[in-house]
Amino acid sequence: MSKVYTGASMSIDGFIAGPENSGFEHLFAWYGNGDVEIPNEIHPDLSLKVTEVSAAHLRTITGMSGAIVVGRKLWDFTNAWGGKHPMGLPVVVLTHSVPDGWEREGEWFTFVTEGGIEAAIAKARELAGDKGVAVNGGEMARQALDAGLLDEVWVDLVPVILGAGTPFFSQLAEKPVPLEGPVSVQEGRSVTHLRYLVKR
Amino acid sequence: MSKVYTGASMSIDGFIAGPENSGFEHLFAWYGNGDVEIPNEIHPDLSLKVTEVSAAHLRTITGMSGAIVVGRKLWDFTNAWGGKHPMGLPVVVLTHSVPDGWEREGEWFTFVTEGGIEAAIAKARELAGDKGVAVNGGEMARQALDAGLLDEVWVDLVPVILGAGTPFFSQLAEKPVPLEGPVSVQEGRSVTHLRYLVKR
Repeated sequence: MSKVYTGASMSIDGFIAGPENSGFEHLFAWYGNGDVEIPNEIHPDLSLKVTEVSAAHLRTITGMSGAIVVGRKLWDFTNAWGGKHPMGLPVVVLTHSVPDGWEREGEWFTFVTEGGIEAAIAKARELAGDKGVAVNGGEMARQALDAGLLDEVWVDLVPVILGAGTPFFSQLAEKPVPLEGPVSVQEGRSVTHLRYLVKR
Repeated sequence: MSKVYTGASMSIDGFIAGPENSGFEHLFAWYGNGDVEIPNEIHPDLSLKVTEVSAAHLRTITGMSGAIVVGRKLWDFTNAWGGKHPMGLPVVVLTHSVPDGWEREGEWFTFVTEGGIEAAIAKARELAGDKGVAVNGGEMARQALDAGLLDEVWVDLVPVILGAGTPFFSQLAEKPVPLEGPVSVQEGRSVTHLRYLVKR
């Protein structure tokens, strides 16, 4: 069965955003601090320039991913990425209601309104074929973890103390959650790419 | 001038203790998961069995440290480590009042009651000679960082999501705090030893 994983750029004190969505100039600095260009044909303004190590890390994620699960909040916040996710993958949006003007099943977005995170991940697995499912956004990641559906946690650890903001994982149903690993540690420039397995 | 640094075992979500001082079986698991014995002559019950990598990491810290700064809370919590710190180093205790039965200057403990973290670190520098000063406990580390006196942050990153508890750094006067590095990444067993510099 497809692996389900989540990943985020995180401060060393565990935040994926500072207060009021601040701090991204720190969290995403590694997207622009290298020599390897990663063009984005869908969104040229989201093209990256990263180190060779970080480029390999991003290629790994892209190569293994077949579909993405997000919550309605992220979908709204990004304005549906202008109509297509930057990774060029089908996106399953978990939402209470299909937004006006969007079909339940579209070319790039599928809206799941019933059955919660389980149904969203099941749908994403269908779309992903033999590839994996990426779960994006702390709230979706937390729900997948609580439901016992998360296999891996990837952390891009960034050298900043944000001091406050949005934690990667919060409001967990059961805690602590022991992980295994890291099974991979890759050193970029001002970022440490860490990969953990969720223990079963 | 002596370097001033702080370090702690930390969950991947940024906590150095779970709720009500829980979670240490996860945070300190790496103290016992290897083959290299690190005896503690002062406190035999605090002897460790760690991996070779973690042993080298601990030897580095021990070798560079000449004195330790702690707050009264940690000193009380550990019951003054039975009279002598496990690292066998002089300890400066920042406190509002010298506890009954203890002199202001003793063989192993020096009590600083005025001048705050600046005075405590100055005293520790005197005692450390040409070695460094370790600041222990999140509250003392936060004060040293706020005072611009902290040079390095060491994190022993442990594969567990605690979900709640005591953050390594909280209530920072100014944030975010950008760091440099990691300047060192050492992979133990179920622990990643990371070393960051505080930017000036």
